[in-house]
Amino acid sequence: MFSMDVDRRTVLRAAVAGGAGVGLAATGLGDSARAGQPTDPDGPARGPRIAILLFDGIAPIDAIGPYEVLSRIPGASVVTVGKRTGPVRTDNGVLTLGVDRTLSQVRRADVLLVPGGNVHGVQTDPDTIRWIQRIHRHTTWTVSVCTGSLVLGTAGLLRGLRATTYWSLRDQLAQYGATFVPGRYVEAGRIMTAAGMSAGIDMSLHLAARIAGERVAQALQLVVEYDPDPPFDTGSPEKAGPELVRLALELLGQPAPR
Amino acid sequence: MFSMDVDRRTVLRAAVAGGAGVGLAATGLGDSARAGQPTDPDGPARGPRIAILLFDGIAPIDAIGPYEVLSRIPGASVVTVGKRTGPVRTDNGVLTLGVDRTLSQVRRADVLLVPGGNVHGVQTDPDTIRWIQRIHRHTTWTVSVCTGSLVLGTAGLLRGLRATTYWSLRDQLAQYGATFVPGRYVEAGRIMTAAGMSAGIDMSLHLAARIAGERVAQALQLVVEYDPDPPFDTGSPEKAGPELVRLALELLGQPAPR
Repeated sequence: MFSMDVDRRTVLRAAVAGGAGVGLAATGLGDSARAGQPTDPDGPARGPRIAILLFDGIAPIDAIGPYEVLSRIPGASVVTVGKRTGPVRTDNGVLTLGVDRTLSQVRRADVLLVPGGNVHGVQTDPDTIRWIQRIHRHTTWTVSVCTGSLVLGTAGLLRGLRATTYWSLRDQLAQYGATFVPGRYVEAGRIMTAAGMSAGIDMSLHLAARIAGERVAQALQLVVEYDPDPPFDTGSPEKAGPELVRLALELLGQPAPR
Repeated sequence: MFSMDVDRRTVLRAAVAGGAGVGLAATGLGDSARAGQPTDPDGPARGPRIAILLFDGIAPIDAIGPYEVLSRIPGASVVTVGKRTGPVRTDNGVLTLGVDRTLSQVRRADVLLVPGGNVHGVQTDPDTIRWIQRIHRHTTWTVSVCTGSLVLGTAGLLRGLRATTYWSLRDQLAQYGATFVPGRYVEAGRIMTAAGMSAGIDMSLHLAARIAGERVAQALQLVVEYDPDPPFDTGSPEKAGPELVRLALELLGQPAPR
């Protein structure tokens, strides 16, 4: 059972293990002792409980981008959830992320985040899909990044809604009864879907504003120093053009579309 | 000993474990069977060997942003390296990332990536600092994100160089003999330093262009759908102003500067 008490203990244990309070004067960055606790006495006494679904095949930036933003909302607590506790392998097989709680251990969340990647294993796992449906009943926000929206679709949560997903898979949204609309993120009722990978950062700032107000969200943008200035302007298929689209699909390891 | 052969086996094992090839038609995203292998017959037969240092206190986006870009360079192989194999806890205590190789198991890399976060433990660990110095001797590129540059500084690699770091710690670069210059990333010889957290994405696209050419880097920008459009414009202290700077420092869990 996921509760603030359990989560605070986890955070404090990690703080002790990680030596929080040591060296902060030197590096000034990341005081785990205060994570998960209100930082503003005028802010909410208890912040949002955020559950992040992790699975084999995940595109890690889909989870990590929003994590860096949302975990620093005053009073926020974050739990990683999966079929089993322990490591999951990311989509291209190298990196692992750790799952702290099994599905049955997490029964409520204010924010449910479903990342994308190679999501077929999630879409075909009835336990995970049912868990998403159950958690969604009581969330304030159910959000996805990249192909995470296809998982929400599989759970039946996108019917009749406007949504987005990874650029190469936009036409798949229709099969879940959703209508693709362009943009970095799409808010539809209490569901928010982000475009691919890095779009989770833009979405999480918008979500932070919804949860904690614009001032906090603006400060969080500074916390993650999100002042983007990419060396190229090829971040959407429209801007990249067909030749780069083909190369991008090749680099993703999939055949080019006919 | 880190070699392409070992790494290919790892990738292929992960591909089998992760069920690569299953469901790709459905999701189209992330074919682990081809990760770590050349995807372009005209490209290099052997791509860059990339070593990412992981440690307790890491800001995960510092590693994950560049990982999503660099791991998809044709022929690239990626290894995560740390004091011990197994999970490390991130800066605010919740998420864990997995270390695949110990320091002594990795003797060469073409690209060494040092992420930031709460880096005091790394800066005060002679084994890790010596390992960075040793690996740097033979790298093509030694790069950092966020406070990772302070670790490079501790290793003596920034003396006389232009560099950048997390926005709140710019004045610390001087103590390592480096000169702060503004920008999302700074290239100085074969050392590249990025500003805070999300700046690692911008830097890794520039680095990908240096390694594999602009066309590949532009395609990689599309792969990670990096077409940034944040809801606010407060991603640097200059743009955010003093009040948001104060709030950001508070959210980071550190006292405001005098």
